Amino acid sequence: MSKYTIGIDYGTLSGRAVLVDIANGAEIATEVLEYKHGVMDKVLYNSDIKLPRDYALQHPHDYIDVLEHCVPEIIKRSGVHKSDIIGIGIDFTSCTLIPVYSDGTPLCFDERFSSLPCSYVKLWKDHSSVEEAALLTNHARSKGMAFIERYGGNISPEWLVPKVMHILNNAPEVYNSADYFIEAADWIVWQLTGKQVRSSCTSGYKALWHSDDGYPDPLFFEELDVRLKNLVQEKLNAPVQSIGTKAGSLTKEMAQRLGLQEGTAVAVGNIDGHCTVPAAKVTKPGEMLLILGTSACFMTLDERELDVKEIAGYVKDGMIPGYFGYEAGQACMGDHFAWYLENMLPYSYKKKADELGISEMQYIFDLASRLEPGENHLIALDWWNGNRALEGGADLSGTIVGMDLSTKPEDIFRALVEATAYGARMIIENFRKYGLNIDIIHAAGGIAEKNPFVMQLYCDVIGCDIKVSGSPQAAALGAAIFGAVAAGKGSGGYDTVAQAAQKMGKLKDVVYKPDLKNKLIYDKLYDEFCTLFDYFGRGKNKIMKNIKNIKE
Amino acid sequence: MSKYTIGIDYGTLSGRAVLVDIANGAEIATEVLEYKHGVMDKVLYNSDIKLPRDYALQHPHDYIDVLEHCVPEIIKRSGVHKSDIIGIGIDFTSCTLIPVYSDGTPLCFDERFSSLPCSYVKLWKDHSSVEEAALLTNHARSKGMAFIERYGGNISPEWLVPKVMHILNNAPEVYNSADYFIEAADWIVWQLTGKQVRSSCTSGYKALWHSDDGYPDPLFFEELDVRLKNLVQEKLNAPVQSIGTKAGSLTKEMAQRLGLQEGTAVAVGNIDGHCTVPAAKVTKPGEMLLILGTSACFMTLDERELDVKEIAGYVKDGMIPGYFGYEAGQACMGDHFAWYLENMLPYSYKKKADELGISEMQYIFDLASRLEPGENHLIALDWWNGNRALEGGADLSGTIVGMDLSTKPEDIFRALVEATAYGARMIIENFRKYGLNIDIIHAAGGIAEKNPFVMQLYCDVIGCDIKVSGSPQAAALGAAIFGAVAAGKGSGGYDTVAQAAQKMGKLKDVVYKPDLKNKLIYDKLYDEFCTLFDYFGRGKNKIMKNIKNIKE
Repeated sequence: MSKYTIGIDYGTLSGRAVLVDIANGAEIATEVLEYKHGVMDKVLYNSDIKLPRDYALQHPHDYIDVLEHCVPEIIKRSGVHKSDIIGIGIDFTSCTLIPVYSDGTPLCFDERFSSLPCSYVKLWKDHSSVEEAALLTNHARSKGMAFIERYGGNISPEWLVPKVMHILNNAPEVYNSADYFIEAADWIVWQLTGKQVRSSCTSGYKALWHSDDGYPDPLFFEELDVRLKNLVQEKLNAPVQSIGTKAGSLTKEMAQRLGLQEGTAVAVGNIDGHCTVPAAKVTKPGEMLLILGTSACFMTLDERELDVKEIAGYVKDGMIPGYFGYEAGQACMGDHFAWYLENMLPYSYKKKADELGISEMQYIFDLASRLEPGENHLIALDWWNGNRALEGGADLSGTIVGMDLSTKPEDIFRALVEATAYGARMIIENFRKYGLNIDIIHAAGGIAEKNPFVMQLYCDVIGCDIKVSGSPQAAALGAAIFGAVAAGKGSGGYDTVAQAAQKMGKLKDVVYKPDLKNKLIYDKLYDEFCTLFDYFGRGKNKIMKNIKNIKE
Repeated sequence: MSKYTIGIDYGTLSGRAVLVDIANGAEIATEVLEYKHGVMDKVLYNSDIKLPRDYALQHPHDYIDVLEHCVPEIIKRSGVHKSDIIGIGIDFTSCTLIPVYSDGTPLCFDERFSSLPCSYVKLWKDHSSVEEAALLTNHARSKGMAFIERYGGNISPEWLVPKVMHILNNAPEVYNSADYFIEAADWIVWQLTGKQVRSSCTSGYKALWHSDDGYPDPLFFEELDVRLKNLVQEKLNAPVQSIGTKAGSLTKEMAQRLGLQEGTAVAVGNIDGHCTVPAAKVTKPGEMLLILGTSACFMTLDERELDVKEIAGYVKDGMIPGYFGYEAGQACMGDHFAWYLENMLPYSYKKKADELGISEMQYIFDLASRLEPGENHLIALDWWNGNRALEGGADLSGTIVGMDLSTKPEDIFRALVEATAYGARMIIENFRKYGLNIDIIHAAGGIAEKNPFVMQLYCDVIGCDIKVSGSPQAAALGAAIFGAVAAGKGSGGYDTVAQAAQKMGKLKDVVYKPDLKNKLIYDKLYDEFCTLFDYFGRGKNKIMKNIKNIKE
């Protein structure tokens, strides 16, 4: 008798549920629902309330809609009986933060607050708390707090505490009335199980929590802002459990609403990228997952707690239980290409693509792929969305060097692709410098699956083998894997994430191998990239920062 | 009784003649003829002989056609009697070089040579002699030749000796058979007067000639290449006269062909840009002419011979007799904008321009002009065609720093405009550093006349008043001014170029004045430009050179 789990993946624009056969990872049925409210970054939905620049909000109702629409739909479509569905896993963008009451009701559902933007979900890419993040980072450094080292020396504006600080500064009544600030991933788990259990992954990577040390102490917060003194005790106070464990069981009410069996195991919530680790069969040191999407994410494992600098962070039980999960990121990848198409692809190229009946993206990729390494005579820095590793990286910006009157659009586009590959190599070499082994890369994300040109280029630049994830919805598959571990072997699931990943995770057969001739050329170009990187990113000049702030 | 002179201006794609009233500079009639053979840069005209990369050739027959078509046409159209036309002046692109026999016949007219590209005119922008220019520069430096200092330490591949060396290396039979290598400007004067008189301007700026020292000595050439030992004595051996003097009188035969009077005064030939100096009323120290066209040219005067570094060159009697004429150049200006339109202007902008019924150039200029200084958060280096001042400047390339995901096309386009303005300011500050006074700028060229946005931006960046030339064909007007001086006061003309320029030269009434608020912002941005300029142009890194030559 086959057993199944459901993985529910909450992305930026839509949510999806997938029903997976736990014997082999077969994705039996999938349903996607776009969020009705989308991303609110101009005005608050259904109002004329303008949002400040850098806001990116969501409406939590959309998340419930995903559950109620997608889960019954995949059950119906698959014909699987609910008694054979033994577990549910959740992954979410992060840090995607909701202020809620003690019963879990979001403050934005309350009429008192529904016209206040700060009562809504602050989406991961809400960048309104840049100032708060800088303040927090400086405070942590000046106090010599150990935790800052776990985050490469920098707290991102995308994380929990800066977002909470922003709410406190801009809508103190929301701050005061909120009983909890909670990650959306953990909030969904709460909705399903009726109890609040926070994830070691969201808490560790985004909320300054550590498995041994917990959160920073009240004195630290008090000295930062006296009103924040009891933030942890009053508004984050809930148990944190390791990913790969069971958070609880599906409540009767939710089981009825979703068409599932009461008591079904619900896994501790997870972050979308981190869920992809076991889905792409990265389960032990030496393997690295590279996710190439809107931005790029690098994740790898080690038994040791190594003090790796210039990364996003490392967290025990952050990716695979039992290991420290090391994460680094590039802020710009697909975003960068989309920017190019919108702002730089010339008229004649668009016309030609139309004539050929292909997308402009495909047309420019085709042309770029026909160039030889080094032929474009260009070097770019891929900092269109800043740099996540360097101190002051938010002030860094995109750069192209080497244009002349014979430079063609495909030369520039290829330079943007190459820049992201050089940036990726730098992150990997940084991992290695601090003692992490990276022997092979498993890649996931739209670009990894669909673009052999980019993958071969990455392979030539980085110089190691690359395998590609076998699922086009790897995060959801990963959530289903965590669902199977939450159910446990006794219920027909698995005891460990590694075992589940071995059966349910997927890789394509193809292996990209470096072309050594190309690699020799890219080694030279990478040297030049490093020179530029050091000059603008670590040098004494403040050119990029200065031109951003020239009028101040 | 009104008197008139004719100015004949040979450009890159066409030649023109203008009939000018010497009392007030009124341009009575103008006729333009496009060259039938155009610029040959792919194949030799009417053949399947492929031209190597970097060649740019012309056919001298086109130059004669301009004389025979345009001169009779303007006389006819104006109704002026030939006896009232007292002088002719010529200006030409330079160094535009013709190998000829002793009677002036171009070698390409000889069937023996007509299939050899090197027997044709090497146009100013023929860049095939890059290697020869480097060899010559190094040789001059290693021998400690004084002349190299007059050219900012660099001999350009566009100049006479490298072009001759290229012919020697690639078509020795052309070199051996040529009795003279002559600038097209001087060749036209020869055609008109029947005698060879070379110009102090072409010889000084482009052929290493100096009013006191003459050309480099035979030993210098012999050590460079033994076959060049007698280059000067055998193939350049003709009198050099100052511009602003009379080269000779129109021959009877040529008078008949052109419908002019035999004996009409013909001025010493001149370079197009240099002819514009008096046409835009730049006649004394403190004034600078800025020509903004495909590239940009900066010209100013001083009584003193100052050892100004990082410029194109300085020549006694090179612009206005009696003064040293100092020249510097930016290799990229209009070219740069044309490159942008072809390679970067996105589809949506082109469509919008079409909807508005305006050119895409005008549309993007309009958008760029609405931005505030500093608002684009970008800095660019305008080196799309290299840098003419710096050592190794041919290996330098265009750069844009500061892009992020919110950067719009007009931000980038404005950055390109600003980059050329910063480059202009750097040239002017360099002039000043070596003791030249620049109190006011007179600007000429298409951009100066038609684009108030660019002119105001230049004014704000550079920080001094700018007046604009009053003639849309200033070079031709300048040639007519030299024609009037060649005729002399005795024939109804003028005794000096300054006097002629006072009457015949033209400025518009408008004066651009710096906006001090904008200038403060641009001062800060210019500092950042200088930092980038020094880093890529003068620093120890060889990033730009390396990425050009990565495969070698």
